[in-house]
Amino acid sequence: MSSVTCNISVSLDGYVAGPNQSTGNPLGEGGTALHEWALDTEGWRRQHEREGGERNADSEVVDDVTRGVGAHIMGRRMFGGGEGPWDESWRGWWGEKPPFGTPVFVLTHHAREPLAMEGGTSFVFVTDGIESALDQARAAAGGGDVAIAGGASAIQQYLAAGMLDELYLHLVPITLGAGERLLDGVGRLSFEPVKVVDSPTVTHIKYRVVRTAEESR
Amino acid sequence: MSSVTCNISVSLDGYVAGPNQSTGNPLGEGGTALHEWALDTEGWRRQHEREGGERNADSEVVDDVTRGVGAHIMGRRMFGGGEGPWDESWRGWWGEKPPFGTPVFVLTHHAREPLAMEGGTSFVFVTDGIESALDQARAAAGGGDVAIAGGASAIQQYLAAGMLDELYLHLVPITLGAGERLLDGVGRLSFEPVKVVDSPTVTHIKYRVVRTAEESR
Repeated sequence: MSSVTCNISVSLDGYVAGPNQSTGNPLGEGGTALHEWALDTEGWRRQHEREGGERNADSEVVDDVTRGVGAHIMGRRMFGGGEGPWDESWRGWWGEKPPFGTPVFVLTHHAREPLAMEGGTSFVFVTDGIESALDQARAAAGGGDVAIAGGASAIQQYLAAGMLDELYLHLVPITLGAGERLLDGVGRLSFEPVKVVDSPTVTHIKYRVVRTAEESR
Repeated sequence: MSSVTCNISVSLDGYVAGPNQSTGNPLGEGGTALHEWALDTEGWRRQHEREGGERNADSEVVDDVTRGVGAHIMGRRMFGGGEGPWDESWRGWWGEKPPFGTPVFVLTHHAREPLAMEGGTSFVFVTDGIESALDQARAAAGGGDVAIAGGASAIQQYLAAGMLDELYLHLVPITLGAGERLLDGVGRLSFEPVKVVDSPTVTHIKYRVVRTAEESR
């Protein structure tokens, strides 16, 4: 049975991006520090067609979270290109060969034709809501998992709707003080830790979602 | 060299108490769920003069965080008794034999004579600030550690002042949705995970405070 998963780096004070996000600084002030643990791993570098990198516990986590993913879902802001109707010259942050390697369903209020990229990635723009996006992603995943790539708002919506099975947090030991919080507005939920990877710099905890907001109402 | 430490249970969304705290419900709505992991341990029960309990990884954590503590510091709200000048009939939440077993320095704006309790606990009321409380606690600890017992505001003040050496989080896999946040208003800090205890229900992570708000200004 395929799962709906999410893995994301989060600060100790719960932020997935710092304050003052902008096109020039999409992760906000201090936000890049959330991802440093991954950038030096062999796993991340291979996925981004770079050589070298460390083969360590963090690298195994990078491989673990990408293995078996057949489709991704992301919010409009994560795909980028600003607000409102599309500037069709915007083809995402990642160049012509994005690292996803699967169909990626982008939640948006503005229709747009799908984009076929290199390396197995395509971007499909979904205007009729998170449930439709999930149905389409499941069909496209061919039995693989569907990963909610971000940002916080998309993850919160899937959590609150009871559609997320697994949340894998990479707990980065910094505070950002302000920014975009991962778990705002999701109400009272319960999780079960199913795996903990204790690397020297980051603590990775994989949770199964036990009780959703819908069930606990 | 003795350390200034803090250990506290926190929800996945960063709360140490739920919403609508009151004298009748000091941990707020849903807040008692933060402490369930401890209540069944042999270590907690022994400290509270009860028999039985589980001898497991959680129980070892309970023993670990109390070992070597020579004095405690807590905020006025944690000691209780309401706002403003003291009602001297209030002698804390814990009865005549509180579980601390050390001098406890209570941060307050209202002077009060010390209270000698049973079992080695005394409450000393400090009106001249967190630094004075820490000086007094260090002197009283006789080379032992000083533990900041809570609440969130006291911990934030010691963190922001660069006086906290160690923060041991018991990460409880629930969200509370609202309440009292542990790491609000502390700015940009860095920590280093020095110990992770992966129990079936709670993930315990001991952090060393690496860079404080004062240093990163």
